[in-house]
Amino acid sequence: MTSRQPLPDFADDERAAVYRAIAERRDMRHFRPDPVAPDVLARLLWAAHHAPSVGYMQPWRFVRVTDRALRQCMHALIDEERVATAQALGEREQEFMRLKVEGVLDCAEVVVVALCADRERHVFGRRTMPDMDVASCACAIQNMWLAARAEGLGMGWVSIFDPARLAALLAMPEGARPLAVLCLGHVDGYYPAPMLEMEGWAQRLPEDMLIGENRWPEDAQ
Amino acid sequence: MTSRQPLPDFADDERAAVYRAIAERRDMRHFRPDPVAPDVLARLLWAAHHAPSVGYMQPWRFVRVTDRALRQCMHALIDEERVATAQALGEREQEFMRLKVEGVLDCAEVVVVALCADRERHVFGRRTMPDMDVASCACAIQNMWLAARAEGLGMGWVSIFDPARLAALLAMPEGARPLAVLCLGHVDGYYPAPMLEMEGWAQRLPEDMLIGENRWPEDAQ
Repeated sequence: MTSRQPLPDFADDERAAVYRAIAERRDMRHFRPDPVAPDVLARLLWAAHHAPSVGYMQPWRFVRVTDRALRQCMHALIDEERVATAQALGEREQEFMRLKVEGVLDCAEVVVVALCADRERHVFGRRTMPDMDVASCACAIQNMWLAARAEGLGMGWVSIFDPARLAALLAMPEGARPLAVLCLGHVDGYYPAPMLEMEGWAQRLPEDMLIGENRWPEDAQ
Repeated sequence: MTSRQPLPDFADDERAAVYRAIAERRDMRHFRPDPVAPDVLARLLWAAHHAPSVGYMQPWRFVRVTDRALRQCMHALIDEERVATAQALGEREQEFMRLKVEGVLDCAEVVVVALCADRERHVFGRRTMPDMDVASCACAIQNMWLAARAEGLGMGWVSIFDPARLAALLAMPEGARPLAVLCLGHVDGYYPAPMLEMEGWAQRLPEDMLIGENRWPEDAQ
């Protein structure tokens, strides 16, 4: 049996800090351009790398984009998909086009998070659910997000792009796949509520509606 | 432009608490059976529901499994897939079979997290990457995981099951899909390192190997 360490409990104020990060984290789109200190960026990547992963496969790879021309190309890719998304939305096209959905050219740091190549040899926890690698990468990004809030930085996850074209732009190996363009940087403040709630795009669902006991929650889809 | 709130910075000890939760969180498989207080479980579900989601779709649904017979059925499903996974692993079959991969019958609470039905109407951020709903659910689960550590509880994410059969067992609506069987409860302590590292299944990858600047990290797949 695997040994376990009786680590000290979290003090009340430590526990409160964790909940505070969860409550105040926002998917940010508005940034100031001033640089992020290298040690802070390193801590955020450390946080990502200390996420859980299915079968301990650690599928996450990171490309920090400092080249301005590359950023411009990424921005163009995102903008193209933004228009395609708007068209696919039909009656909400104009409403969507008014939203700010990324901050790639404004933020201090852009980090692309991608799934590694050669993932199919990882069978543990993925035989019936191969997309658990996506889930692991998302856990890594959520760690970064919370750490960024604790560092006083804002982060936004952009998923509005053609993954094959972004992979080609960054010369990813075959089988690798970008999941996120992360915009990271200083912010003037955080949205008091999720931006898409403030903009009237959607409302938070009532929590009770989402939870069932021994069966699917009755009122939920 | 969306208004922003200049929220107070995290104090040093608050920031440290967030990193502590990230560092000490473990994917737990060993549990004590004593019950989890209802208000603690409610806080964990609150944390999940305050995760980010693509286009604010909030795709997560939760089924708390308190029925012992239902748990037994879930355990049987998981055990069946455990054997199938072991066989698919080939030369590592025996090594895998020795690992403890779930704690469904031991832990205080079992919570199934599933993707909601009728997801295809959510196009925002998903037109080219439909599995961003899986990513959102994973962010919710990571929030729960960190909150559980802060509460002194252990949590494990089991993804070793046939999702269609688990969906049928819990009478999920068509289109819904279970992603996680979460085992949650009191623990005697936390593994000092990820259990699969302690058991020699895999090692943590060197962080430098995972990070590239303007290009794919050279030494990584």
